[in-house]
Amino acid sequence: MAKGNKLTTRAENYPEWYNDLVKKADLAENSEVRGCMVIKPYGYAIWERMQQTLDQMFKDTGHVNAYFPLFIPKSFLSKEADHVDGFAKECAVVTHHRLMNAPDGSGVVVDPDAKLEEELVVRPTSETIIWSTYRNWIQSYRDLPLLINQWANVVRWELRTRMFLRTAEFLWQEGHTAHATQEEAVEEAERMLGVYGDFAEETLAIPVIRGVKTERERFAGALDTYCIEGLMQDGKALQAGTSHFLGQNFAKAFDVKYATKDNKEEYVWATSWGVSTRLMGALIMTHSDDEGLVLPPSLAPHQVVIVPIYRKDDEKDKVLAKCAEIAQTLKTAGIRVKLDDDDTKKPGWKFAEWELKGVPIRIALGPRDLANGKIEVARRDLKTKEVMDLTDTVDETMTALLADIQTQIYQKAKTFREENTTSVDTYDEFKAQLEKPIPGFIYAHWDGTTETEEKIQAETKATIRCIPIGNEQEEGVCIYSGKPSKQRVLFAKAY
Amino acid sequence: MAKGNKLTTRAENYPEWYNDLVKKADLAENSEVRGCMVIKPYGYAIWERMQQTLDQMFKDTGHVNAYFPLFIPKSFLSKEADHVDGFAKECAVVTHHRLMNAPDGSGVVVDPDAKLEEELVVRPTSETIIWSTYRNWIQSYRDLPLLINQWANVVRWELRTRMFLRTAEFLWQEGHTAHATQEEAVEEAERMLGVYGDFAEETLAIPVIRGVKTERERFAGALDTYCIEGLMQDGKALQAGTSHFLGQNFAKAFDVKYATKDNKEEYVWATSWGVSTRLMGALIMTHSDDEGLVLPPSLAPHQVVIVPIYRKDDEKDKVLAKCAEIAQTLKTAGIRVKLDDDDTKKPGWKFAEWELKGVPIRIALGPRDLANGKIEVARRDLKTKEVMDLTDTVDETMTALLADIQTQIYQKAKTFREENTTSVDTYDEFKAQLEKPIPGFIYAHWDGTTETEEKIQAETKATIRCIPIGNEQEEGVCIYSGKPSKQRVLFAKAY
Repeated sequence: MAKGNKLTTRAENYPEWYNDLVKKADLAENSEVRGCMVIKPYGYAIWERMQQTLDQMFKDTGHVNAYFPLFIPKSFLSKEADHVDGFAKECAVVTHHRLMNAPDGSGVVVDPDAKLEEELVVRPTSETIIWSTYRNWIQSYRDLPLLINQWANVVRWELRTRMFLRTAEFLWQEGHTAHATQEEAVEEAERMLGVYGDFAEETLAIPVIRGVKTERERFAGALDTYCIEGLMQDGKALQAGTSHFLGQNFAKAFDVKYATKDNKEEYVWATSWGVSTRLMGALIMTHSDDEGLVLPPSLAPHQVVIVPIYRKDDEKDKVLAKCAEIAQTLKTAGIRVKLDDDDTKKPGWKFAEWELKGVPIRIALGPRDLANGKIEVARRDLKTKEVMDLTDTVDETMTALLADIQTQIYQKAKTFREENTTSVDTYDEFKAQLEKPIPGFIYAHWDGTTETEEKIQAETKATIRCIPIGNEQEEGVCIYSGKPSKQRVLFAKAY
Repeated sequence: MAKGNKLTTRAENYPEWYNDLVKKADLAENSEVRGCMVIKPYGYAIWERMQQTLDQMFKDTGHVNAYFPLFIPKSFLSKEADHVDGFAKECAVVTHHRLMNAPDGSGVVVDPDAKLEEELVVRPTSETIIWSTYRNWIQSYRDLPLLINQWANVVRWELRTRMFLRTAEFLWQEGHTAHATQEEAVEEAERMLGVYGDFAEETLAIPVIRGVKTERERFAGALDTYCIEGLMQDGKALQAGTSHFLGQNFAKAFDVKYATKDNKEEYVWATSWGVSTRLMGALIMTHSDDEGLVLPPSLAPHQVVIVPIYRKDDEKDKVLAKCAEIAQTLKTAGIRVKLDDDDTKKPGWKFAEWELKGVPIRIALGPRDLANGKIEVARRDLKTKEVMDLTDTVDETMTALLADIQTQIYQKAKTFREENTTSVDTYDEFKAQLEKPIPGFIYAHWDGTTETEEKIQAETKATIRCIPIGNEQEEGVCIYSGKPSKQRVLFAKAY
């Protein structure tokens, strides 16, 4: 880790830059429990804003929240054949329910008499426990659709972890819906893909490709997995959310049937969809720079920070009073503003600190500004500074500026993606592109087989991120096998 | 369980009434995992409102949220001597991190090669993992106070569980604060007791006694435990929230020191405080009746339900249009309103259903009401019905009525508590009071010893709920030992 407040630069070492940033901007840190992170207050405040926005979007589309058990009986995982292969392997297994004092007085040990009859798995995802519950909730078409979301922690025993991107425990939401028909379930899975896409672009300011996964990349137990894919600054893709059409797989595994209007028994159709604290990783890697975090105003815990500048005590009172007045004006206008009046830190230190923490706008005001009726306004995204007249409409000016920053950082990320999206016709071109410092998104023809997909990944580490929704149809030949292809698909190296 | 929508009455069987109500009002149900419940959407919507209100109260008192790991290394629990006795015993122990396919193809089994080096305990409470983290966060007095809250799930392996009141997994918040001085920590513990007390009375409409626990009833690791105690309709007490002054116990156990202003090293002072989904149980048992739930308007997912009444199709359109108009007016005024226009259910069924679910106000409107410009307004709490003029100020009328209901149900509960609080001078009186159908709160002199406290509990099942804050000092003799006593303390049978 680079020293002090300095970050390792992206050019020096991108993964190290990421780790530095996560730690120094007070977003998260590794805990003493292997693979589990601590989400620090500043990072959690950003996650809370994501939660609030998403939760409202879920409610606006007719969903309600509920809560299901943390533990899943081991046998439940085996009930859906594909699912068990995908999720039953690396997970936290609870085998006992009691500790006891060690006979030698050295601490506590597991009480061998307290072994569970059936082991419990800490949920890696909740399809099984939820569908075993839905069996009792669904009898008739009148009970459908069932549109439920859960905010929860889940655990997948990852060997190589990275804060936010891949941790053993993470926080997420998982929607689990039940429908009378295939059409309705597919429509729901697509609707939630749309919600995720809109959220990514409007709130996170991350442009995303909406698409469908190949069979190989599908969720374990799904018939179709929809996804949103963002492009990070190092030219790698990051899957930022998925929505699954589960067909009747879980209904059959857990025997969930409903009586239709004409009183026939049918299995229920299902979807599930989720996003997680991984979005924090996407947010960081899309916008941030070598000076630290760049936050979209929509998520910034502080949208504006005001730094008073003074030397003498008589200056201090006047400057602080004016800063407090500005803060109050902005607060009244609904802007999240922080007046940094900490006496123990110098302005230069504060500038660096709030830059590191990605506050979109910094206002500085000193005695001369006060005399001249001016403020210095700095934009975090462009690193520009401007001296402005301090007027009665400072709140409107800041609101407009915040909106502009939100738009600009989205546009910047979109331009980056466009500049780093290529289309190749041969495997040599494909491999050459992947060797570049920023490999980016690569559109290429593929013959549609899992075999080719696996070989390409084994040879290049690139995977098919998705088949974009509304993808242009175009005759061509697979870059690997030379077999005919009807469309280009989206390849990239990925997180 | 009583059949259909009917509940077992409180007089018939109070615990059965409670279980019936929790299930039939769609609050929660037992899951297939022993001791774990499913919180259903209607119950969760109430919990969400509790969370939102509390979260704002925590933020208004300077706290921020963060998130710490679900798992605690076994050895952490042994670091604080009292804490390990209180919490290390009945808990979920993770011993392995992988399942594998059973060699006989029968499903999945625990992979014996995937044994953890050190077992992990699913957090029963987070003092240990949090204080091991705080060690790195606190160096100087400038880092204090540290005022952090966490919303999380916790697991305590309870043998006898009851929905909301005592479950193996439950949802809660836990505040963990660090302070430079004992005074500040005590002040914080008392402040949060105040927050809980205000929340209970103003939002839950539950009158509570604020007090201090005896040494025996203290949290494991605390020097003082403050609590709020409510009285349920069966005359038993329910502890609805606790706030602990932890002294320097956890700072010493995890070596958390800070440099004072004059550069001395001191151990940090701590508090922790929490409320849980148990509050749902307190809410139900304080206000509800034999017809179902009674919700305070502050927490009701639907504050007003509108039931249209019609027979013929031409009636239907007109009645529905007027109901929709009323709903829109109320919604605009910020009232949470539900227009129940479900065609497949009759008005009588809907009346019973919304009564069961505790909606504070029901408005019914039929063709005759429409012609006469009237609505029928029913109050859930008093079970009164009134025909009112439907005026342009129906929103103001309903807002005032909701405020009145909030006040009235609090007053009703307070009157119940006053009527069921007694003061006794002898052990015979004490035992006689406990034999009554509603034993209630009992004030009695106690000699201050754990020995007496334990004997009284063993003989009567009553415990000392607390020594009320600002308790009147009064010379007397202990009802059990006859030894001198300076004050009466609060006894009750308790959940």
